[in-house]
Amino acid sequence: MAEDERTLDGDDTALADTPEEGARPDDRIDDARMDEENTLKREFVRSVEDALDAGASGELYDLVEPLHPADVADLLELFDKDDRHRLATEITDLMTSEVVAELNDYVREEMMEALPADAVAQIAEQLETDDAVQLIEDLDEDDQKAILAELDPEDRIAIQTALSYPEETAGRLMSRDFVAVPEHITVGDLIDFLRDGRDLPDDFFEVFVIDQRMHPVGTCQLSWILRTPRDVQLGDVMKRDQTLVPAMLDQEEVGLMFQKYNLISAAVIDEDGRLVGQMTVDDIVHIIAEEAGEDALLMSGAGEGDINEPIREAYSSRVRWLVANLGTALVASLIIALFGAAIEQLVALAVLMPIVASIGGNAGTQTMAVTVRAIAMNQLTSSNTGRILWREFRVAMLNGVTIAVLIGLATAVIFTPLLGAVIALAMVINVATAGLAGVLVPVAFERLDQDPAVASSVFVTMITDSMGFFAFLGLAVAMQVV
Amino acid sequence: MAEDERTLDGDDTALADTPEEGARPDDRIDDARMDEENTLKREFVRSVEDALDAGASGELYDLVEPLHPADVADLLELFDKDDRHRLATEITDLMTSEVVAELNDYVREEMMEALPADAVAQIAEQLETDDAVQLIEDLDEDDQKAILAELDPEDRIAIQTALSYPEETAGRLMSRDFVAVPEHITVGDLIDFLRDGRDLPDDFFEVFVIDQRMHPVGTCQLSWILRTPRDVQLGDVMKRDQTLVPAMLDQEEVGLMFQKYNLISAAVIDEDGRLVGQMTVDDIVHIIAEEAGEDALLMSGAGEGDINEPIREAYSSRVRWLVANLGTALVASLIIALFGAAIEQLVALAVLMPIVASIGGNAGTQTMAVTVRAIAMNQLTSSNTGRILWREFRVAMLNGVTIAVLIGLATAVIFTPLLGAVIALAMVINVATAGLAGVLVPVAFERLDQDPAVASSVFVTMITDSMGFFAFLGLAVAMQVV
Repeated sequence: MAEDERTLDGDDTALADTPEEGARPDDRIDDARMDEENTLKREFVRSVEDALDAGASGELYDLVEPLHPADVADLLELFDKDDRHRLATEITDLMTSEVVAELNDYVREEMMEALPADAVAQIAEQLETDDAVQLIEDLDEDDQKAILAELDPEDRIAIQTALSYPEETAGRLMSRDFVAVPEHITVGDLIDFLRDGRDLPDDFFEVFVIDQRMHPVGTCQLSWILRTPRDVQLGDVMKRDQTLVPAMLDQEEVGLMFQKYNLISAAVIDEDGRLVGQMTVDDIVHIIAEEAGEDALLMSGAGEGDINEPIREAYSSRVRWLVANLGTALVASLIIALFGAAIEQLVALAVLMPIVASIGGNAGTQTMAVTVRAIAMNQLTSSNTGRILWREFRVAMLNGVTIAVLIGLATAVIFTPLLGAVIALAMVINVATAGLAGVLVPVAFERLDQDPAVASSVFVTMITDSMGFFAFLGLAVAMQVV
Repeated sequence: MAEDERTLDGDDTALADTPEEGARPDDRIDDARMDEENTLKREFVRSVEDALDAGASGELYDLVEPLHPADVADLLELFDKDDRHRLATEITDLMTSEVVAELNDYVREEMMEALPADAVAQIAEQLETDDAVQLIEDLDEDDQKAILAELDPEDRIAIQTALSYPEETAGRLMSRDFVAVPEHITVGDLIDFLRDGRDLPDDFFEVFVIDQRMHPVGTCQLSWILRTPRDVQLGDVMKRDQTLVPAMLDQEEVGLMFQKYNLISAAVIDEDGRLVGQMTVDDIVHIIAEEAGEDALLMSGAGEGDINEPIREAYSSRVRWLVANLGTALVASLIIALFGAAIEQLVALAVLMPIVASIGGNAGTQTMAVTVRAIAMNQLTSSNTGRILWREFRVAMLNGVTIAVLIGLATAVIFTPLLGAVIALAMVINVATAGLAGVLVPVAFERLDQDPAVASSVFVTMITDSMGFFAFLGLAVAMQVV
């Protein structure tokens, strides 16, 4: 590559000197407004509240204007519905499409529903297709139609095409703006083409090389293009081996693909293998965070669990699991009822029995959380389920014996040695059961094509509760404690 | 930008025709080896196992050779320790640094410990600094020293500098390979400089513009450079407003920054504001997934919860929480013991009391999961804690009343109306308590600078268990059921 003249003043390093001084960037480490965790300071939020209450529009504008759009979105999310609408009205000029794109889904939906269709259409037109789709997809069908009718035909078709793919697939999420060129051109041709650049996306990180049927044949990162002399053929710079995303692929799998192969962007292809869009990692990052974080919420039975979710939705998603939990608790109660006579004779049984159930439940939840995570990360496959089950059983036995010794000794001292032996044995049985259930229940749901994070918890708890009471009370009767 | 000549055969679109045919890319939708979830097929893993057992080295090599390094890493992770070492020995040529970089932390550490220092040093030299640091940081200090001694001085210093930053900070994780140029050069100068490119990183997505003190003054995405005529000054293309990452910032905050501002890469600065490295989103993606996923594991008390974690480490991290849970279960038992006389008189109390505790525990876990997630995403700040607490209390009251009606009616029918009233009232009290505790406990840990995901669970369960037994048994006595 030595044929190119160099103009960097013969300086061999990348670091030459600049004459200017004092051009400190607005570097977003913004002490007046943001704290060290990069969230809005409480004092700042208070002054916004005060200005809002005082109706001081000018002051409000001055306060909000310096914020990054993502921080304006954060600010809006901090307020309740009424204050949020008042604030948005006061700072209309600052409510850019970037702010709307950064809003929490629930908050955005609620704000869009309050706006007339043409106002939403105006915002949608300024957004990139993928953000516009997100804006529109959650609205009622009537609202969707009204907004689509207001759009330019080109934007409307792009959004309708996206909406024709199922939710949470690559086709729905992809961007339709990308750069695709034929293989036979040179690097110089490509640079000239880009400089001419009508209809190019604002930001892009690679150029896709396609054949005449629009099938991707290779990919070229921009840094490779910049480092290559103008007369080299693109076919000699590009990488033929590339990761293609089928348009029907679920977003969770797309996220895992990006993680696994360290992708920055990837071509999306339709069923015929034609290039139809691209996904970039900055969109995927949100999906990865969402998918990775949602398992904790799903396992707890909290549904989507967003603090901005409307109360009636939060109620309906949570109460379902509490009712299911009521059912499993009744099973445990039935088992206790079987041993009513024993409890009447020795009330210590009623005092101690929740301990066995509680520790079993906890041990089961631990194993289940590990298993659900491993399934979500594609780490646990049919090839290693047996090995992991054996591993978890051994961990459970170690845990069970440790806890059994502690509670067994304490019970032996406070009550009787026999009761100590009973509770210790029941504890080992229940923790071992918990270890097996914690693997087998989520694996079974996965095999049945059900999300293991959603329903495993109820079943694991039912198993450990019932087994806890049954083993303890049953052993007490069998070993003639009563 | 019309002054540049165009050479794309007058074709106005990005899609021109190529003469070649049939150059289908190796597109990693690889039916023989990978299933639709992009994990290794069981049959493929079986044939590797069979070849390994048969000692058929040639066959093994042929099987593994077509895999992407990330899939070779996945394959190794599927085997247990002994088989993994045998496989690695058989396919030494395929054990590239890329494979090592993609291995699970535990598996990598275990494999590296088995290798002599010079072999590890050889691998480390082929890796980028950030991957090499990851390779070395978990080893014993003696092993670290032995490996560092084998490295080139330049690599050694880079790794030692990285290790001088605390774990999980930007300084430890950043890459020291980046492109930084002064502001006064033109786009053409920059392209020529890049083409000359000694010591440039393989992939980069933006060029940092710095002043003579090495302070970043702006940033330039490669796509902007490619779209700009050669004679334009860099200062006129670059964006002055950029997000800078302090080297001491925790990785979780770095991940949130990348998410919030949709970054692809960002400059890392030291305490004096000098550019010392860059972080790119492909490294951040793993951190975001890890941080988002770990809360489910931490809340369950499963520690790091990786299925590759050695059994003794899994045991020690989990048993700690089970012992803590034993303590909280004892508190609940003490409360039951207070009401021993009442239980002796009416064994139905022992049968029903776990239901109140169990539903309360579940409701508390739901609220806690939502709160912990909101704290982790910086959504819950001191500005909106009061509003969220009120929101969760209302959800809890709705849930509590629903469940109370169900269990109250059932109990009234099976036992007595009075007992039905007691359990219904106890249920409302306990679910409401659960809602408050589910917010207040994690928020309190956050204020005390403790990770709310780690210890909240034990406390919330203790509160809901104790309150469940106390409210139910206490009300039974107070309302003279017994």
